[in-house]
Amino acid sequence: MSDYDSVSADVEHEEEIPENHPRYQDLLTRHRIERGVEKGITHLQGMHAEGRGSAFDYLLGEETIPSADDAERAAAAHLLLADRPVLSINGNVAALVPGEMAALADAVDADLEVNLFNRTPERIRAIADHLREHGADEVKGLEADAHIPNLDHERSKVDADGIYEADVVLVPLEDGDRAEALDEMGKIEIVIDLNPLSRSPQVADVPIVDNIIRAVPSITEHARKLAAADEDELRAVIEGFDRDRALEEAEERIRSGDL
Amino acid sequence: MSDYDSVSADVEHEEEIPENHPRYQDLLTRHRIERGVEKGITHLQGMHAEGRGSAFDYLLGEETIPSADDAERAAAAHLLLADRPVLSINGNVAALVPGEMAALADAVDADLEVNLFNRTPERIRAIADHLREHGADEVKGLEADAHIPNLDHERSKVDADGIYEADVVLVPLEDGDRAEALDEMGKIEIVIDLNPLSRSPQVADVPIVDNIIRAVPSITEHARKLAAADEDELRAVIEGFDRDRALEEAEERIRSGDL
Repeated sequence: MSDYDSVSADVEHEEEIPENHPRYQDLLTRHRIERGVEKGITHLQGMHAEGRGSAFDYLLGEETIPSADDAERAAAAHLLLADRPVLSINGNVAALVPGEMAALADAVDADLEVNLFNRTPERIRAIADHLREHGADEVKGLEADAHIPNLDHERSKVDADGIYEADVVLVPLEDGDRAEALDEMGKIEIVIDLNPLSRSPQVADVPIVDNIIRAVPSITEHARKLAAADEDELRAVIEGFDRDRALEEAEERIRSGDL
Repeated sequence: MSDYDSVSADVEHEEEIPENHPRYQDLLTRHRIERGVEKGITHLQGMHAEGRGSAFDYLLGEETIPSADDAERAAAAHLLLADRPVLSINGNVAALVPGEMAALADAVDADLEVNLFNRTPERIRAIADHLREHGADEVKGLEADAHIPNLDHERSKVDADGIYEADVVLVPLEDGDRAEALDEMGKIEIVIDLNPLSRSPQVADVPIVDNIIRAVPSITEHARKLAAADEDELRAVIEGFDRDRALEEAEERIRSGDL
């Protein structure tokens, strides 16, 4: 792609990216992923996946559409109602929103668990350290003493007292196979993905079609507003959310938005 | 993105990617770019740019649409008619289609010139070596003894007897600023880019909205078929191509294709 490339690659710190740049969010996202690769947090393929996402975000207009905001509110309600909510962290999530995920975990009293597609002990440790540097207290995923059924060995590893036992899981930017396997375990699954037709949002109870750098702070904000709500109110928020309509609206926006 | 990630990252050689995989072209492209980054040919941001392109290719249906094939034929005619045709090579082009660009240079008697957005002597040498390993004879771009007007210093460097003097240039995956500056120099410009609304195809005489791994072999094939054509026939091919309609058809396909 072309225009997209017209800011220098030599930005050292994200503060150097001008906030009034028309492609600010895209440049910030790319910068954070690039630093993630350099720090050993993000797999090189994560850079490609993020680029792919950025094209869908461009077609969405790089903003949180109303149906995505509804999904973020429903996600907050699910996390607040959960007995054992877990937020899953992969290399792109850690690079893009480490502090934001720690803040969400705090707001809804959830655990953070590192869960990688390309799993190595070094990357897991680097990600756990990175999350702690950004305010996370406890980070799960290092035990890997349980398995998600119906996935091959390395990709199925989870913590027994984390994702394995969770009733509600937030799995942003998740691989389709793992999203399906988690769905088959009967968990309430919240997915963040910019392509409404990919498998992960299709199997999710709450598909959030939004950029993760907008989505996670938005879920946290909704959770704070809903903190005083009782169970009936939270259930009403959840029942008011229509997942099929949200997916349709995202697709419609991609097709009809300004290119 | 999700589904997209469900083939292992541990493919060592591209022959290991099953040709009947539904995402074969996308996986092949990603694999080549990844190897390019590892070899020092491709900038890390090239991985992101390629991911972005892959989303547009997905929306196009991952095939050469008829208007793109028309553009590829017109590109072949322009290159055959040119006095000094030059094919510009950046880090992504070198990683994705090194042998294919060498074959095209041979078919239309053009020069290859390395031309980088993030220019370092090491990357230029690595790319020139990589092209030679893939069959290129001569590779320009190491002299850098001329400048494209209206671009900042590093990004404007070209060879005096290469892009600077060229009458027809093929600039695949080109940055918008440089595409505009080349256009202002009065060159006939052929651009390959998967986003029909980005600046580079918008300023091109021949915008090719297609994946480079399909587009370059297609231009070569057209050039071979047109090799015996006389000047009038080549001019007729060029005049029969409608750039505005080609851009519109690509946009229409992105909007209406199966997601």
